[in-house]
Amino acid sequence: MSKLQQDDKLTIIGAGLVGSLLSIYLAKKGIEVDVYERRPDMRKIEISAGRSINLALSARGLNGLQGVGLVEKVLKQVISMKGRMIHPIKGENSFQPYGRVEVDAINSVSRGELNSLLLDEAEKAGVNIHFNEQCIDYSIHKSNLTLKNTQTNHESIENVSPVIGTDGSGSPIRWSMIKNGRFNYSQNYLGHGYKELIIPPGPNGEHLLDKNALHIWPRKSFMLIALANMDGSFTCTLFFPFSGEVGFDKLTNENKVQLFFNEQFPDAVELMPTLQQDFFNNPTGNLATIRCSPWYYRNKVLILGDAAHAIVPFYGQGMNCGFEDCIIFNENLSKFGSDWSKVFSSVSEQRIENTNAIADLSLANYVEMRDSVTNKLFQLKKQAEQLLSKEYPGEFLSTYSRISFNVEPYVEALAKGKIQDEILLQACKQIKDITELDTNKVMTSIQEAYIK
Amino acid sequence: MSKLQQDDKLTIIGAGLVGSLLSIYLAKKGIEVDVYERRPDMRKIEISAGRSINLALSARGLNGLQGVGLVEKVLKQVISMKGRMIHPIKGENSFQPYGRVEVDAINSVSRGELNSLLLDEAEKAGVNIHFNEQCIDYSIHKSNLTLKNTQTNHESIENVSPVIGTDGSGSPIRWSMIKNGRFNYSQNYLGHGYKELIIPPGPNGEHLLDKNALHIWPRKSFMLIALANMDGSFTCTLFFPFSGEVGFDKLTNENKVQLFFNEQFPDAVELMPTLQQDFFNNPTGNLATIRCSPWYYRNKVLILGDAAHAIVPFYGQGMNCGFEDCIIFNENLSKFGSDWSKVFSSVSEQRIENTNAIADLSLANYVEMRDSVTNKLFQLKKQAEQLLSKEYPGEFLSTYSRISFNVEPYVEALAKGKIQDEILLQACKQIKDITELDTNKVMTSIQEAYIK
Repeated sequence: MSKLQQDDKLTIIGAGLVGSLLSIYLAKKGIEVDVYERRPDMRKIEISAGRSINLALSARGLNGLQGVGLVEKVLKQVISMKGRMIHPIKGENSFQPYGRVEVDAINSVSRGELNSLLLDEAEKAGVNIHFNEQCIDYSIHKSNLTLKNTQTNHESIENVSPVIGTDGSGSPIRWSMIKNGRFNYSQNYLGHGYKELIIPPGPNGEHLLDKNALHIWPRKSFMLIALANMDGSFTCTLFFPFSGEVGFDKLTNENKVQLFFNEQFPDAVELMPTLQQDFFNNPTGNLATIRCSPWYYRNKVLILGDAAHAIVPFYGQGMNCGFEDCIIFNENLSKFGSDWSKVFSSVSEQRIENTNAIADLSLANYVEMRDSVTNKLFQLKKQAEQLLSKEYPGEFLSTYSRISFNVEPYVEALAKGKIQDEILLQACKQIKDITELDTNKVMTSIQEAYIK
Repeated sequence: MSKLQQDDKLTIIGAGLVGSLLSIYLAKKGIEVDVYERRPDMRKIEISAGRSINLALSARGLNGLQGVGLVEKVLKQVISMKGRMIHPIKGENSFQPYGRVEVDAINSVSRGELNSLLLDEAEKAGVNIHFNEQCIDYSIHKSNLTLKNTQTNHESIENVSPVIGTDGSGSPIRWSMIKNGRFNYSQNYLGHGYKELIIPPGPNGEHLLDKNALHIWPRKSFMLIALANMDGSFTCTLFFPFSGEVGFDKLTNENKVQLFFNEQFPDAVELMPTLQQDFFNNPTGNLATIRCSPWYYRNKVLILGDAAHAIVPFYGQGMNCGFEDCIIFNENLSKFGSDWSKVFSSVSEQRIENTNAIADLSLANYVEMRDSVTNKLFQLKKQAEQLLSKEYPGEFLSTYSRISFNVEPYVEALAKGKIQDEILLQACKQIKDITELDTNKVMTSIQEAYIK
């Protein structure tokens, strides 16, 4: 085992959420850390409006923050969401709790504010953050990092190793690994994209919808969602096909957008005075899943976060999963010290199957959110999960709870969830009302199936 | 429908086998074609020894050559291979025919000679081939092709559209499509690589093994193969793990290589006087599968051949599949004229599922070649296929025949093959000797299963 040395150094590319948190972990271990970030310092300039403004922080993300003592600070900036509020076109809204009522909640947090907090903490811990420095290339064999200053256009070369790329789904560090050869890689795009829209605060700064719910307008082939912000506003996101019967390619002018929203989201549209501007000014985002292996090359380079495992946002796990990467990295650092090739290979091995599992679950959850939530059988199953959680506290956990309120490995949550969901569905098919459910029998079946 | 116009122009990147053949098809339709090729003119300089020197030309490849009237010319340069000659470590060699004895054969052809012939024919047809011009980048939206002359290092920009990338598995054109976004892509590497070696001609220029067979030394987790060349030599290829119990990482010096070959390939090693030099001078090649979709962007750019669907070589279908791309392209050109976006989208749609099918079959065939061929049940199944082909000529076709001696779409060959292989395996499990096979019953089962 090689202990950490006084002169251990590490370079991180990308000061987003995962890069910033990771740098804090490293600095706290006494490692000298340089972080290069392509964008300006977000604490000084307002940037990137119109793209994933808020995120859902849950157990794994909180666990990642806990490791550097930041949970309490962050929890002051969040709005808890206890379940989904389903908005049908006509009729009453209905509320579906995420887990145990009054206990389990996910937390709406501003990406910008959380990132700024992490940058502050990183600098406090002694991390050197270099803003406006875009990574153009990393030559793995020469250990040469080519940087371009986005303000002066000056290019410089730094000889640095090892390098960790937390440089997001378009990761330049990952491209250098692809070019390096024998690197398995896939990128898969959904035929749907997304557009962010706004529900502003009410006249007295109040939230105009229940702030403690994640709002969904499920419309089978597409959906609108809304998460509350601290300033009284909601960020809404339309997830929508690029083309087809309905699609972005059909909503070509303000009139068409207005008519479509009036028809599909009547209760939301009256709260959206800037719908037209937002729709045509904000970019249409892509939704991609990225998988690769291995995540490292020898003791030279490692990728983490979206750079290694970008997922679609429907389980609210992108950031949470990335923060969990930091925990696993930190554990391996404690175990192997600065034997980087061991640290990197062990992190890669532990995380790949887990991040593939959450990638699959996230894709499946799009169908659940836009379609299944309105289905009677699905609603009965959700009620069964509520009932079982209450009758068997700690013993029964829904798949959603396993992912969002617990930290068991994703791959186990996926495997157990599949078995359990099948048993629950079969049981619910045979009843008309939740009072008819034989919870004892169902729980026994689930436990027996786990043992097999 | 938009007819071809007198001033229709097209640019092809890469004058390998697929690019050259495609250019002939286009020129014969009266289209002005420019081809940019990174390497020097192979007819003037000897290049790229040590990497896939010979290839197996079969029905689909011949069909592609037929379309431009080149079959007879090419068939003068081939050596037919009627089956596999299996070399065990000890004991007698055994011959497994590929199809109908004395009728069905695949053809060993020199990559270099075939490519040179196609370049000659392309130039005769009026194609402009620019050698030593490496594509650095293609800016899809600006239609700007950046070329670098590999001899002068001079960079130039050509404004060209449309562009077809037949620029191989590392395709720069494909990278420009990846950067363009919403392009599904995967690259997957085997944990095995390959090394080319030589069995030279005998003292009188004769072949030292049966030239009309594809020789295999199957060793379960790895294998050596040999294909005859016209000059009396054989090109051997060792397919071998990079690491593990046996692996390239263990064969680190001449002594270890010699001992290993003596033990594993005793009858081959005595025909390989330059084993040591070849082993350490020739590169170790990677084996990757590349899949993507769509293969085109609007009316701007299309990729074909290995650029779109690189496969592992174990079904001998890489070139054959690429030549089939040319046929399908030509059919769509006849149908849609120079309505490029229609031509491109139609080719992409028709080919993707088929090239995915041959990718799957090629991966599976590695296991067959290095392992199953020595298995009793497998051998019985091969005999059953022989028998059924004889008793039901034209009606019964083995999967291998469907792929190599026929031109039905790969996806159908794969689907029918799966059904049929399962029935044959079940039937063979119940007999000890091929004379016990109830061919009528088996054939009826297969026909019934196809209808379902």
